[in-house]
Amino acid sequence: MTDETGGPVRPRRSRLRPLAPDRVRILDGFWAELQDRNRRAILPHIDHWLERAGWLGNFAADPGDRRGREFSDSEIYKYLEALAWELGRDPDPVLAERYDAIVARVAAAQQPDGYLNTWFGRPGQGARWSDLAWGHELYCLGHLIQAAVARARTGHPDDLLVRVACRAADLVCATFGADGLATVDGHPVIEPALVELYRVTGEPRYLEQARLFLERRGRHVLPEIEWGREYYQDDLPIREATVFRGHAVRAVYLAAGALDLADETGDGELLDAVTGQWRRTVARRVYLTGGIGSRHQDEAIGEDFVLPPDRAYSETCASVGSVMVAWRLLLAHGDPVAADLIERTLYNVVATSPAADGRAFFYANTLHHRAPGPPPDPDRPHPRPTAPVRAPWFDVSCCPTNVARTVAGLSGYVATSDDDGIQLHQYVTGTIDGRLTVTTRYPADGEIRVRVDQDSDEPWTLSLRVPAWAGDGATLTVGGHTWEAEPGYVSERRRWQRGDEALLCLPMMPRFTHPDPRVDAVRGCVAVERGPLVYALESVDLPDGMGVDEVRIDAETPPRLVDGRVVVRGRRISIADRESPYAAEPPSVVADDLGEIPLVAYHAWANRGPSSMRVWLPTD
Amino acid sequence: MTDETGGPVRPRRSRLRPLAPDRVRILDGFWAELQDRNRRAILPHIDHWLERAGWLGNFAADPGDRRGREFSDSEIYKYLEALAWELGRDPDPVLAERYDAIVARVAAAQQPDGYLNTWFGRPGQGARWSDLAWGHELYCLGHLIQAAVARARTGHPDDLLVRVACRAADLVCATFGADGLATVDGHPVIEPALVELYRVTGEPRYLEQARLFLERRGRHVLPEIEWGREYYQDDLPIREATVFRGHAVRAVYLAAGALDLADETGDGELLDAVTGQWRRTVARRVYLTGGIGSRHQDEAIGEDFVLPPDRAYSETCASVGSVMVAWRLLLAHGDPVAADLIERTLYNVVATSPAADGRAFFYANTLHHRAPGPPPDPDRPHPRPTAPVRAPWFDVSCCPTNVARTVAGLSGYVATSDDDGIQLHQYVTGTIDGRLTVTTRYPADGEIRVRVDQDSDEPWTLSLRVPAWAGDGATLTVGGHTWEAEPGYVSERRRWQRGDEALLCLPMMPRFTHPDPRVDAVRGCVAVERGPLVYALESVDLPDGMGVDEVRIDAETPPRLVDGRVVVRGRRISIADRESPYAAEPPSVVADDLGEIPLVAYHAWANRGPSSMRVWLPTD
Repeated sequence: MTDETGGPVRPRRSRLRPLAPDRVRILDGFWAELQDRNRRAILPHIDHWLERAGWLGNFAADPGDRRGREFSDSEIYKYLEALAWELGRDPDPVLAERYDAIVARVAAAQQPDGYLNTWFGRPGQGARWSDLAWGHELYCLGHLIQAAVARARTGHPDDLLVRVACRAADLVCATFGADGLATVDGHPVIEPALVELYRVTGEPRYLEQARLFLERRGRHVLPEIEWGREYYQDDLPIREATVFRGHAVRAVYLAAGALDLADETGDGELLDAVTGQWRRTVARRVYLTGGIGSRHQDEAIGEDFVLPPDRAYSETCASVGSVMVAWRLLLAHGDPVAADLIERTLYNVVATSPAADGRAFFYANTLHHRAPGPPPDPDRPHPRPTAPVRAPWFDVSCCPTNVARTVAGLSGYVATSDDDGIQLHQYVTGTIDGRLTVTTRYPADGEIRVRVDQDSDEPWTLSLRVPAWAGDGATLTVGGHTWEAEPGYVSERRRWQRGDEALLCLPMMPRFTHPDPRVDAVRGCVAVERGPLVYALESVDLPDGMGVDEVRIDAETPPRLVDGRVVVRGRRISIADRESPYAAEPPSVVADDLGEIPLVAYHAWANRGPSSMRVWLPTD
Repeated sequence: MTDETGGPVRPRRSRLRPLAPDRVRILDGFWAELQDRNRRAILPHIDHWLERAGWLGNFAADPGDRRGREFSDSEIYKYLEALAWELGRDPDPVLAERYDAIVARVAAAQQPDGYLNTWFGRPGQGARWSDLAWGHELYCLGHLIQAAVARARTGHPDDLLVRVACRAADLVCATFGADGLATVDGHPVIEPALVELYRVTGEPRYLEQARLFLERRGRHVLPEIEWGREYYQDDLPIREATVFRGHAVRAVYLAAGALDLADETGDGELLDAVTGQWRRTVARRVYLTGGIGSRHQDEAIGEDFVLPPDRAYSETCASVGSVMVAWRLLLAHGDPVAADLIERTLYNVVATSPAADGRAFFYANTLHHRAPGPPPDPDRPHPRPTAPVRAPWFDVSCCPTNVARTVAGLSGYVATSDDDGIQLHQYVTGTIDGRLTVTTRYPADGEIRVRVDQDSDEPWTLSLRVPAWAGDGATLTVGGHTWEAEPGYVSERRRWQRGDEALLCLPMMPRFTHPDPRVDAVRGCVAVERGPLVYALESVDLPDGMGVDEVRIDAETPPRLVDGRVVVRGRRISIADRESPYAAEPPSVVADDLGEIPLVAYHAWANRGPSSMRVWLPTD
C-alpha cells in the first residue's frame, strides 16, 4: 500500500493537490446540515431499503431468490463508500459495526477466484461476462473498488473490503487483459475505479487494465442499439470525440476515468481531448442548475442548446459524475470554471435530490413542473425514475446512494494545496489543513472570513475563488487593505502569521440571469439567482389555486431580498381560450399586478406539499 | 343489407349528410395528385412490404413462422380498406383481382366460429382473448370491419370480406356481450367499426356491442400501467372526461366510436361530452399543423399548451383519427371549426407523411428538426417510428396504410347535403353530386369557381366554407354581385339554374401566425402560413452549411409571395460561445442580413435531401 490518503481522487501530476479527507472539517452551515442529514436520516433510510428490497440479502440468497435489477449490487457498494467516508469523518462504533457486517456479507459471496456478482455465474443464472453490454458486472465491480478506495483513504488500507476489491480487480485483469476478452462494460465506472485502486495499491496491472478499457471503447465493441452506440460512448474513441454525449451518467464516469489515466500516464493529448469535450459540454449542454441530460428516453445528454426545462432529466447521478469530472479538471488545470460548476452542481442538483427529511429523493431534477399531482407513496418503491417527484426508493435506485457517498465525502472538494500555498474553492465554516479556519454564513450571505492558524517563516499564497457570477463588486480585505477581486482566483502571498485574516466579500444581491438565445426552450424568460443558488417560483407561494404558468415577471425591476426571501415583481395573466391557440394576432391578455412574489431556492422546492414550479420565468 | 353508400361514415341523425363516395369526383389539383400518387406508388409500395415482411403470409403460415408484431393483421385490413375505396373510385380489374386474392387469403384463415387472428389461438400461441390490454385482437377486427364497411359502401354489400367481418363481429358479440367477458380492448377501434357495420347491415347486436365497449371503458377494466390508465382511456368513463388524453391514436378512435354511438342512439349527453372534450383539445392540445401528441414515450397527447415543436410526435395515425372525429362533429353540428381542422390536418399532416415519390413515410411529424442526419436506408424497415425521417417501412408500420386508406377515401370529406342544399367544406377541382362542378387551383390560389350543372324549380342553398384564417377579405360573387364573406359558412339560396356560378375568393397572402403565450415552447416565435398551408424554413434553402437555428425573422415585414414562393426577411445570427450559456447579460449577437429567405410548404419538406427544418421562427 503506497497511499493512504487523498480524498475522492488522488492524481499524480496535477497542478493542484487534494487534501486528505481528515484535513478538512465542515463544521457549520449548509453543507454541515446536509452531512448531518446524511448521517442521521439518509444513511439509515438507505440501509432500511437495501434490506427491505432484498438487495443486501442477495449476497447470501439462493440464485433463484435473487431480487432487484442486474445492477443492484452496486447500491450496496455505493452505500459502503458512503459509510467509509462517513467513518472517516467520525468513527462512530455503531456505524463501524454495521459497515463491517455488510462487508462480511459481501466478502462471503466472493468466489475463490475473485468473482463477485449476485446476478450472474451461479446455477440458473447467466454465465459470467455473458452480457457485458447490459449486465453491469464490471460496473458493479467498479463501485466495489470505489468503496474500497474510500476505505483505504480513510485510514484502513488493509480493510477486508480492500482485499475483496483487489481480488476482484485481479480477476478482471486476468479476464480482460491484453490477451483476454477484448471488450468493455456497457456502463463505465470500472475505468476510474481501477486507476484509483492503482493509486491506492501501486499495482500497475490495474492502471494498464483501465487503459485497455478506455482505448477499446469507441471502436464498436458493443452491439448497435436503437439509440446508437453513442448511448454507451462506443461510437467514437475518446480521443476523437468533441463533446460529451449519449447516456449522461455513462459519459461522465468515462470522462473521469480518462482524466485519471491521462494524469497517471502523463498523456497530455488525452487530457486536452477530454478538457475540450468538457468545455464544449459546459458551454452548450448544461442546465442552469449544473444538471446534464435533456432526454428521458435514453437518459442522454442531448444536442447542443437543447435544454428544455420541462424535459430536464438532469439525473442526480449524472451530476455526481459531473462533479467527479470537474474536480479532476480543477486539479489538473486549476480552472475556476470547473470549481464554479462544482459549486453550481452541488447546491442545485446534489442538494436538491434529497427531501428536507432525507427520506425521499429526486432521480430526475426537472426545472419546470406544471401540474402539482399527488405526492408519491412514502412506503413504496417508485417505478418511474423520470417522474418529477421525490420518492422513497426506486426500482432503479442509483441516486440515493450516489447522493449519500457524495455528501459524506464533501470535505474532499473544499480546498487544495500546491507547492506555493492553499486554494479555497468552496466556502464552508470549518478548518482547512490545520492551517486555516473559515467562518461564513455563505450562501446566506457573502462574507467569508479566513483566519490563519499557524505562524510561517516562509511566505505562501492563499488563493480564494471568486465565482463568475460575482464579477461586479467582490472584494478581498487583508491587513486593513481592501481591493477588488475579479472572477477566478484572488491570491495574497505573504508570510502569514497566526491570527491573520483575509475577508472575502461576495456580492449577494439577487440577480436576473439570461440564457443564450440559442436555447430555444427558454426564449423570453429569465431566471433568478442569488450567489450560487438558483431560485424557483413555486405555486405554494402564490394565491390559492394559481399555477406558476400564470405568472409574468417584470424584468425591469431587479429581484431583491425582503425579510430573507428573494422576491420578484410580477403579474398574473389570464387568457381566454380561443378556438385554436394560433391566430394572426396574439390573444388579448388580462394582467393583474401580483406585487412582489417570493421565490424559493431551487434545492428546497417540493418540500411543502404538491406544487407547480418553474425556474425560467417568462417576462412581460 | 340496408345501406350501400355513405362514405367514411354514415350517421343517422346528423345535421349534415355525407355524400356517397361515387357522388364526388376529385379531378385535378393537390388532392388529385395525392390520390394518383396513392394508386401509382403508395399502394404498390405497401403491397410489396406486406408480402416482404411476411405479414400477409401470416394468414397461411404455420403459427411458428408467424412474423411481425401482434397487430400486423391490421395493416392488411387497412390496406384492403384503401383498395376498397380506390376500387370505388375506379374499378380497375388488376387491382380488383389483387383485392379478391388478399380477401381470399384472409377468409381462409378464419376459424369456423368466426375467430380471425394470426397471433393468437393456434397451437404454440397465446389463447384467444388472453391479453386484451396489449394483444390488439379486437383492434385488428375493428380494422377488418372498417375495410368491409368501405367495400359495402362502394357497391359490394355482399362481398366475401363483408361476410368475413360479420362472422367475426358475431363472435365478438357472443364473447363480449352483456353476459360475456366484461372488458375491452387496450386499443379502441372496434367501437366505431361495430356502429358502422350496424349501419351497413342493420344488425342491432353490433350497435349494442359497441355501446357495451364504450360504457365499460374508463372503469379500470384494464391493468394499471406505468403511464397510468389514461394511456388507454381507462381512467375515466367517456362521459366524465373533459379533454382528449393518453395515447393519441387510442383517444381519437375512441371518440369517433362514441360519436357514432351518440348519433345512432340519439344520446345528446354523450354527443355534448365528446364535443366539449374535442373543443378543449383543439383549443389547447393541437399543433399548428393539426397534429396531436407531444409525448414520444407513451405516444400521448400531453398536457394543455405543452406543444414543443422539436418533441412533436404528431403521429400520422393520430391525425387520421382526428379527421375521423372532426368529420363526425362537422356532420353532427355543421361546425366550421371542425371543417377547418380537417383541412389543416389533411394538408399539413396526412399529406406530409408520404414522400414525394410515395415510397417513404413520416410516422412522427416533428415541427423542428435540428440536425440533418443521414437519410434512412430505403430498403430496410426502420426500427424507430419516432425518428424525424421518412422511412420505407417500420416495424410498427401503422401509418403508411392509414395514409393510404384516408387518401383513397378523400372524396368523402369534400361536401355534404341537407334538406336545404349542399355544403362545400373542402375545395378541389371536381364534380359534386351531379349538381356542381368546382374549378380551382386552390391552395395555389384562392379563386374557387362553383358552376351549377342542373336546373332547379325550387330554391336551394349553396353553402361554402370560409376558413377562419380568411377573416379579412374573403368575397363571394354570384350573379354579378359581390359581398364580403365572414369565416364560417357563406350561403346563397336561390333557384339555381344550370350554368349559374358562384365565385369564392379567399385571400391568399402569406401571413404570420402567432401562438398563444401559454405555449412555452414557441415563445418569441412566429410561424408563416398561406391559405391552409403551414410553411417551414428548410436548410437546403439557406447558404451552404447554415442551419435553420441561425435564422432570426424580421416580424415587422410581412411574408410575401415572390415567383410563387413564400419568402420572409431574416438575418443570420452568430453568437460566440461563452463559458456557460447563462449570464447576467445576454451574449452579444452578430447579425448579417440574409435578405429574403424562401420557405417551403411544410408538407413538402425533407424531399430534397437531409436538412434541418423549423416551423416556428424566432423573431429579432
